[in-house]
Amino acid sequence: MHNHSAPIFFHALAFLIIHLLLPFSVLAADSAVDIQAVDTAWIAIAGALVFMMQAGFAMLESGMARAKNAVNVMMKNYMDLAVGAVLFWLIGYGLMFGHNPTGWIGQDHFALAYGSDWTASMMFFQLMFAATAATIVSGAMAERTRFMPYLFGACGIVAVIYPVFGSWAWNEHGWLKQMGFIDFAGSTVVHSVGGWCALAGIMVLGPRLGRFGSKGEVHMIPGHNLSLVAMGGFLLWFGWFGFNGGSTLAVGTEIGPILLNTHMAGAAGAVGALLTTWMTRQPVLMSSVVNGSLGGLVAITAGCASMEVPYAILTGFVGGIVTMCGTWGLEKLRLDDVVGAVAVHGFSGVWGTLAAGLFLKGNMFDLNQVIVQLIGVAVAFVWVFLSALLMYGLLARTIGLRVSTMHEQRGLDITEHGEVGYPEFNRDAAYQREHVEQLSKL
Amino acid sequence: MHNHSAPIFFHALAFLIIHLLLPFSVLAADSAVDIQAVDTAWIAIAGALVFMMQAGFAMLESGMARAKNAVNVMMKNYMDLAVGAVLFWLIGYGLMFGHNPTGWIGQDHFALAYGSDWTASMMFFQLMFAATAATIVSGAMAERTRFMPYLFGACGIVAVIYPVFGSWAWNEHGWLKQMGFIDFAGSTVVHSVGGWCALAGIMVLGPRLGRFGSKGEVHMIPGHNLSLVAMGGFLLWFGWFGFNGGSTLAVGTEIGPILLNTHMAGAAGAVGALLTTWMTRQPVLMSSVVNGSLGGLVAITAGCASMEVPYAILTGFVGGIVTMCGTWGLEKLRLDDVVGAVAVHGFSGVWGTLAAGLFLKGNMFDLNQVIVQLIGVAVAFVWVFLSALLMYGLLARTIGLRVSTMHEQRGLDITEHGEVGYPEFNRDAAYQREHVEQLSKL
Amino acid sequence: MHNHSAPIFFHALAFLIIHLLLPFSVLAADSAVDIQAVDTAWIAIAGALVFMMQAGFAMLESGMARAKNAVNVMMKNYMDLAVGAVLFWLIGYGLMFGHNPTGWIGQDHFALAYGSDWTASMMFFQLMFAATAATIVSGAMAERTRFMPYLFGACGIVAVIYPVFGSWAWNEHGWLKQMGFIDFAGSTVVHSVGGWCALAGIMVLGPRLGRFGSKGEVHMIPGHNLSLVAMGGFLLWFGWFGFNGGSTLAVGTEIGPILLNTHMAGAAGAVGALLTTWMTRQPVLMSSVVNGSLGGLVAITAGCASMEVPYAILTGFVGGIVTMCGTWGLEKLRLDDVVGAVAVHGFSGVWGTLAAGLFLKGNMFDLNQVIVQLIGVAVAFVWVFLSALLMYGLLARTIGLRVSTMHEQRGLDITEHGEVGYPEFNRDAAYQREHVEQLSKL
Repeated sequence: MHNHSAPIFFHALAFLIIHLLLPFSVLAADSAVDIQAVDTAWIAIAGALVFMMQAGFAMLESGMARAKNAVNVMMKNYMDLAVGAVLFWLIGYGLMFGHNPTGWIGQDHFALAYGSDWTASMMFFQLMFAATAATIVSGAMAERTRFMPYLFGACGIVAVIYPVFGSWAWNEHGWLKQMGFIDFAGSTVVHSVGGWCALAGIMVLGPRLGRFGSKGEVHMIPGHNLSLVAMGGFLLWFGWFGFNGGSTLAVGTEIGPILLNTHMAGAAGAVGALLTTWMTRQPVLMSSVVNGSLGGLVAITAGCASMEVPYAILTGFVGGIVTMCGTWGLEKLRLDDVVGAVAVHGFSGVWGTLAAGLFLKGNMFDLNQVIVQLIGVAVAFVWVFLSALLMYGLLARTIGLRVSTMHEQRGLDITEHGEVGYPEFNRDAAYQREHVEQLSKL
Repeated sequence: MHNHSAPIFFHALAFLIIHLLLPFSVLAADSAVDIQAVDTAWIAIAGALVFMMQAGFAMLESGMARAKNAVNVMMKNYMDLAVGAVLFWLIGYGLMFGHNPTGWIGQDHFALAYGSDWTASMMFFQLMFAATAATIVSGAMAERTRFMPYLFGACGIVAVIYPVFGSWAWNEHGWLKQMGFIDFAGSTVVHSVGGWCALAGIMVLGPRLGRFGSKGEVHMIPGHNLSLVAMGGFLLWFGWFGFNGGSTLAVGTEIGPILLNTHMAGAAGAVGALLTTWMTRQPVLMSSVVNGSLGGLVAITAGCASMEVPYAILTGFVGGIVTMCGTWGLEKLRLDDVVGAVAVHGFSGVWGTLAAGLFLKGNMFDLNQVIVQLIGVAVAFVWVFLSALLMYGLLARTIGLRVSTMHEQRGLDITEHGEVGYPEFNRDAAYQREHVEQLSKL
Repeated sequence: MHNHSAPIFFHALAFLIIHLLLPFSVLAADSAVDIQAVDTAWIAIAGALVFMMQAGFAMLESGMARAKNAVNVMMKNYMDLAVGAVLFWLIGYGLMFGHNPTGWIGQDHFALAYGSDWTASMMFFQLMFAATAATIVSGAMAERTRFMPYLFGACGIVAVIYPVFGSWAWNEHGWLKQMGFIDFAGSTVVHSVGGWCALAGIMVLGPRLGRFGSKGEVHMIPGHNLSLVAMGGFLLWFGWFGFNGGSTLAVGTEIGPILLNTHMAGAAGAVGALLTTWMTRQPVLMSSVVNGSLGGLVAITAGCASMEVPYAILTGFVGGIVTMCGTWGLEKLRLDDVVGAVAVHGFSGVWGTLAAGLFLKGNMFDLNQVIVQLIGVAVAFVWVFLSALLMYGLLARTIGLRVSTMHEQRGLDITEHGEVGYPEFNRDAAYQREHVEQLSKL
């Protein structure tokens, strides 16, 4: 540890000497702060905030599941993060941000051994984004997916599906980027990608036992812990400040407007969901309001750097409505998304990407831009949905994706992990605890 | 995304060229870092931390309520944040920080469409403060307040009560500010304002059923989830580093001493509460220790930038004692504050504002300063308490503020939201779950 | 509040005037940003992140304990933080970072009244480290330790045991530091110190009732709330970015590589624990995976600033394995560590400190360096383990360290604090609530 407590006088003296003796010296840049050093610190902090989104997803998804699957959901989020980091470092980062002469795929920066301060910081930040895309899926597919096949799927997303589309939209030479596609922090690149993977996953899996009756009736399956849902919502919102703010990759670059837009859109999304449930005379569920705010945040992610505040509010507000209507629509189609991830991330991501084109500051309602946005949205859907459908389909046909009916009834915590989330609270705790003790004696 | 990985050599070359060819060029400011860019990033991060205080309030307040009201409490905090953001952006910010020729009210900056990087960052930061003031109330009034009227009250605080007092104390031309009133980060401006609103609210509402017996006896109603209380305490403490540290609005401005004072005062507050309960031979409750730390943090908020460390410790320590005694005093007066918000934010806020005058570094125990502090404290109480009393009184007389006795007994989660916090844990879960299913079929 | 929204033109003008009229002026340093200001902000934010590790420990440890001890565990973490801050400010900081002419102990900077921006920020940061070392112990000794003697022990760690070793390894003139001992952010200085204190504590205390049978059988005692365990794991991981990143004490100093290494090692630790449990055909517990990631994070703490990424991954991976094997080994020795703190912090800390020597970038596998690392590790064990054994032994012999059997059976929440963590969920809630009401009437 070195000491920086040299008085201001020292800096003054140093400055004096430098200007007298070394008028053109580069050392002067050192008496102030190098811009890269500050940018690096900014990205590092933003990356840490995005990390908390993983915790947010884990809490939100676990809280919306039943107690018998709480551990399983959290394990999936925890291991997404772990496996995702290793694989994205190994393969994904290179595919996405490596040198990309064709515009279709990156070709270097695999398994980086030691980058500069900035490069490493950038990779740290991007690792968190990749994990976010992967972990969106876990909530939708909760309560019925086997642990190992799920993890293989997460690997496929982090190593292939996400970075390939990312190389088109975010790589400097990506063909969508070259076309002028605007997706600042990833309404499409991160959130819709996660949403379409989730959609493919729940289509392959089928709904949970008892979710839809034989006569078309819909049974609500309440989450076990709404405190976790609220906590998850707050943590995700918090992390979004890093997600959108950090995507500047530098200070001095509209961080203020970006964060203001992000926050206002999240707030407006919650209000939008509240009003939607009110006006359709449904109970005002906390899970709806939380999902509404997340829908607003997803929607503003594409355009947060290029919209005026009133349009950010509108974008978020509509995002909240899209989330609610999308959730109800999927239910009508008898698709069982435990947490509403397809609506929040997929549908609101589409809306947000279009909104980024519609409400572009200085170039509002430019038809060409909107068409480019539509192309990006459509390409993302086709690539991600089809490749995820193929991947989950293959997993289902080979090693099997869904747990047995008996395991689903008993809960995945005890059957997949031999652990119970709340051995003292749960109604069936006594029964389950016996199992834990038996398993631990094996 | 642009690439900042240019080597230091490039910066050196740029510096050389600039000094050779453009000796007076403004570009030199770009080779280092613009001070506003760094300040903006600092405020942005601090604002994100203050955001987490909302999560802290939600967890703390929900944990101190009964399980049947857990969702309701968290919903109120979540919607405070959402509605508060929209309204403060629309009205409050202008009233508080707009051009203020009379010293009594700001007159522009309403519904800002697009600010500079710094202005937007400042608004982002201030949005969080406004939400904090509003959400302090929710815990005190928990377990018996209707959702919609509560939200209207929160709107009144964010749009009128809070910004009007704020324009006196924090606007550059505010009359209290001109008088020399010291309240660095808001012991009075934010916390006492929230505390006095809470006091008015619980006076209008009356105590919860069964809280006070007919013979004057006091019944403790234990909170349902002390893990949430601890989590809430940690998150609030964490957020306070942004609250006090960010109020510098710039780096290079005593951030270190401010955070050190903040942390020491929080710690001393916890110790103060611990010793107070010990010496009065009461059980050492975790909720007391958490509230003591918050009392210490509230107390140091006014003077954290202008006190030496030992006085910060003293201020926090007394804050913890004030919190405990205040809580017991309110109980004696048969005022039912579910979480102790009036004592933590109101009473400790008063003490802290006086302490900021008493322990002013370089001008200790200056009677004039203490009188100014007293004036600020008194004015805050009169304005906030009376206007909140009027507001809650009107709400109670018109649309009604308190839920029916039957709803209070059943719990607000099921009666106001049709949702249960823990459908699998709660003793009455089976009963409640039936209701949820019935509601979801409507 | 002052306004920074002056346009760039103003900065340009200022720059011009300064260079024309005051060519050697120190004011020019003000138009850009002073490096200390940015460093201070960085340390402040990093310190706030490390603060969240306390919340992480509280959640993780409480979740791994039974519901009847949940409050007690959280109280210990909360008060560690509070008492630790006051004592480290008073004594510990001076012993550790004060002027140290002999290399064995610091001699000034006790009870600092007012430091510069940077000094105060540094102390703020170091306060969090001291609290971390102390609070590692609480989890290992959970469910059977009296509250007050525990707190006295925490005081001993923060005021003496931790800072004395710290003065050898981290003080500029410390003898271990002079010898070339590498422990960048404290695999040994913080984590092993905490781990060895925990080891001494559980040896003095003995195992919980029913943990080990009379015939040598091991009974697993499942934690009451695995959501809290996951939350704790995420918060600790999050805080580690501040722990390792902040230990640079400055921006522009490899923050990127440090955070990347930290994250990759945590991820690899989780994978290591997962594979270890799989290959030994044990149930894949979430608590194992979380502890594995923490083992990986502990291991990389020493060498995060001086390793290439692949070696960081290897270090973390082995850290996860060490954690699992260490936990099983302690169980074989009939040592009852409730959360696995000795294995996570003690054993992985040893491995990480050696790894920092083995995988030193530019000087790999240098035997001399490895020997220096071994000396540091051994010295830490001897000093910390013996002094902690003496301290806890004395506490046990004098005021008593362990609760009575009856209190252990009833749970420490009700017997030590008169408060119940979950009065509405717990099977014995009705019984316990009666007690709370009786106590509150005292």
